[in-house]
Amino acid sequence: MDKMKQAQTTLKIKTNRQGLFEITPMVTEWLRDCNVNAGLLTVFCRHTSASLIIQENADPDVVLDVQDFYKQLVAEGNNIYRHSSEGIDDMPGHIKSTLTDVSLSIPIMDGSLVLGTWQGIFLFEHRARDHSREVVLHVMGQ
Amino acid sequence: MDKMKQAQTTLKIKTNRQGLFEITPMVTEWLRDCNVNAGLLTVFCRHTSASLIIQENADPDVVLDVQDFYKQLVAEGNNIYRHSSEGIDDMPGHIKSTLTDVSLSIPIMDGSLVLGTWQGIFLFEHRARDHSREVVLHVMGQ
Amino acid sequence: MDKMKQAQTTLKIKTNRQGLFEITPMVTEWLRDCNVNAGLLTVFCRHTSASLIIQENADPDVVLDVQDFYKQLVAEGNNIYRHSSEGIDDMPGHIKSTLTDVSLSIPIMDGSLVLGTWQGIFLFEHRARDHSREVVLHVMGQ
Repeated sequence: MDKMKQAQTTLKIKTNRQGLFEITPMVTEWLRDCNVNAGLLTVFCRHTSASLIIQENADPDVVLDVQDFYKQLVAEGNNIYRHSSEGIDDMPGHIKSTLTDVSLSIPIMDGSLVLGTWQGIFLFEHRARDHSREVVLHVMGQ
Repeated sequence: MDKMKQAQTTLKIKTNRQGLFEITPMVTEWLRDCNVNAGLLTVFCRHTSASLIIQENADPDVVLDVQDFYKQLVAEGNNIYRHSSEGIDDMPGHIKSTLTDVSLSIPIMDGSLVLGTWQGIFLFEHRARDHSREVVLHVMGQ
Repeated sequence: MDKMKQAQTTLKIKTNRQGLFEITPMVTEWLRDCNVNAGLLTVFCRHTSASLIIQENADPDVVLDVQDFYKQLVAEGNNIYRHSSEGIDDMPGHIKSTLTDVSLSIPIMDGSLVLGTWQGIFLFEHRARDHSREVVLHVMGQ
């Protein structure tokens, strides 16, 4: 049996609107080069107004409905929040980040992530303007 | 000190209603056979309309109240969502999954999970019909 | 390359009100003594009415707005919940815990957590009375 090893990288993701950006292909491509047969992948978002979710990547309507739900749940507007200097989508973005995920842990079995048939990994951008986001990948295994 | 090792398995859980199904005994039983004294357990749900939470497993009213909260927060109904072909409980299930957890990471100390006195691990089923769900367990430690 | 190693500890945090308590300094101080250059930190909250989030620690208004959002989202009151014997802030606390995080996984690169510029780790206390909370830290790496 091989010795336990680890690898890490930082993905850079350009976003230009609020919504969900699938990063599964970027993740699996990097993971292929790591040659880990059994182990654990951690995905970590380095931001407080963007976050991570795992959701269905088959019907594109699903992520649009997810996005609309959060838009209705967390109101945008003036005079709602103390923290408002960075725009009306800023504080709602912080809140949406706390409702979703900053880190995800996904086991690797037989050389592949154990994602279910319909599961994709998404960056959830909560800001309307252009952003460059960093997502750290860390894998440990053998 | 022993060498670092890892083990993995897939739990199959039959569900027949919306709500919370405790899986702590299945998890701890498998973990006992792994003989890990110090390490990290990851629990991963392979679905997009079922998820995971850790909650109180002492008073059964707690999980019923949790379930009711999510039922009120995420409306079921026709004409609310674009993605509606799989039933009125489908898109709400996807949303509830993003509000709760797809993965949980629990340290192991002195041979046991560090779960608090009242903490149990639950599969949160968001669909009304019968389903067979898969939850992957991964442990790394020594 | 050094051999893979791990370390664990339990932080004790006194809380005396509902709200967010930053624990980043306690975490990074402990981590410094672990001498891990590359690895994975797991933060785990051993409670069902307190939880964890990562959020902006620059403008203190952000965490106040986060707290207010959850207070409005999850109503406190009599006759709303089945589980009410431990006070009106108890069941809402359980629900807020499921909406936020019980565990966080943060990679370590070049000897430091990969937290973004604005990210701090917070214990989210959902109960109004004094509590002593336990947060377990687990690190694995080399």
